[in-house]
Amino acid sequence: MSESPQEKKIATRLFVEEPLSQGVKIGLDHARAHFLRSVLRLAQDAQLAVFNGRDGEWLARIEGLGKGWASLEVLELRRPQTPEPDLWLAFAPIKRGRIDFLAEKAAEIGCARLLPVITRFTDVARVNTDRLAANAREAAEQCERLTVPEVAEPMKLSNLADSWPAERRLILCAEFGPARPVAEALEEIGDTSGPLGVMTGPEGGFARSELDALVELPFVTPVSLGPRILRADTAALSALALCQALCGDWRARSDSRA
Amino acid sequence: MSESPQEKKIATRLFVEEPLSQGVKIGLDHARAHFLRSVLRLAQDAQLAVFNGRDGEWLARIEGLGKGWASLEVLELRRPQTPEPDLWLAFAPIKRGRIDFLAEKAAEIGCARLLPVITRFTDVARVNTDRLAANAREAAEQCERLTVPEVAEPMKLSNLADSWPAERRLILCAEFGPARPVAEALEEIGDTSGPLGVMTGPEGGFARSELDALVELPFVTPVSLGPRILRADTAALSALALCQALCGDWRARSDSRA
Repeated sequence: MSESPQEKKIATRLFVEEPLSQGVKIGLDHARAHFLRSVLRLAQDAQLAVFNGRDGEWLARIEGLGKGWASLEVLELRRPQTPEPDLWLAFAPIKRGRIDFLAEKAAEIGCARLLPVITRFTDVARVNTDRLAANAREAAEQCERLTVPEVAEPMKLSNLADSWPAERRLILCAEFGPARPVAEALEEIGDTSGPLGVMTGPEGGFARSELDALVELPFVTPVSLGPRILRADTAALSALALCQALCGDWRARSDSRA
Repeated sequence: MSESPQEKKIATRLFVEEPLSQGVKIGLDHARAHFLRSVLRLAQDAQLAVFNGRDGEWLARIEGLGKGWASLEVLELRRPQTPEPDLWLAFAPIKRGRIDFLAEKAAEIGCARLLPVITRFTDVARVNTDRLAANAREAAEQCERLTVPEVAEPMKLSNLADSWPAERRLILCAEFGPARPVAEALEEIGDTSGPLGVMTGPEGGFARSELDALVELPFVTPVSLGPRILRADTAALSALALCQALCGDWRARSDSRA
């Protein structure tokens, strides 16, 4: 008895850069070929899903693979591309381990863009954006997203504030100063709004002068995440989840999994 | 110029078991004495904050310390004990690293009790509840809570369901089957409700028969966390943050930090 591709359980999903359409052949780089062959132990003719962030999710077949190479044949469309929430995360970089975790979680929660931002008390000298992007991509592959979050190059807080798009409301997680309870602020924004962003400070918090300047910006809504001192990663993940639940695509259950 | 104790910046907070009142002396165990002396490099007369989950937060002074021992003198009350949200987390244990992280984050978000629950697809043989409790305690010390989350011994899902207090609404993170969008369900509960709990499954998800049985229970509200497949830890942290933001103590900014 044959199943439709939609019903088949496909355990493996890969993000690829190439355009996707029926019959297209895709060569994989050494790392991904090794992953399929030696980690997942897949063989020729095994099926997997591929997506590129533009053309939806496609069923593909391993046409051939060997040591360090693999080629795929794209078979048929599984899911068309659909719009995803336009939610950014601007965050002061934190220690390795925690920043990897943050990239993974932000991707799962549905963040579209990660923007490392250097604040006065940021205590991390260098941000490995390649590693962040790899973590985000892997999480996107596993969580069934049809896109992968972009990772921007780090920039100074003042530059970020100057270049922030005015129409993108910025939910600023403020540890002190005037701020509204986060749910109240997000309920008011609701799903009628345009693009959103979340901003969180470093482990040492924002400097008072930084917060004072940020709250003056017309696109900034300072919010409070309650009476306890949250770590930077906890604050970021909580605020992202709240944006999705109150203003994003957690407002409705996906039909495909109902 | 002297400051009141409330204004003093106290970097170190310790959870202790002893009753706290003015003039009480407290001996610390080897591990904590070592922590004060060799990790934090504190000396005699250094001040710190102590709390025990019952008597509020107190200013204390290191009366003496040496290799493997330290004694504190309790000076004066900094913050009286206040009620904290009564929010539990029942969760299928996950891999080390991720479960440590979960205990830390749950403590910061304000979870009162962690209940490891063994489900059909739980893939973890043993739960180190001592380590979980230590992680939760350390996070509680750092995030300025006045309590430390309790960690229950692991129990089977069927036993947990049978012993769950009927008045405690259980927010069940359901990956499939009937479920309401999480914000909609929590907005309806609002802050008029009594105690709350969150339940999340293992990485492999709940078995269909488990979810079918859970949703029949009168105290269970199945909710959806959107269209992507969240890891178990992401689901738990998101649901806890949502409970606090919509039904708990994130609804108002704490006066002390406004």
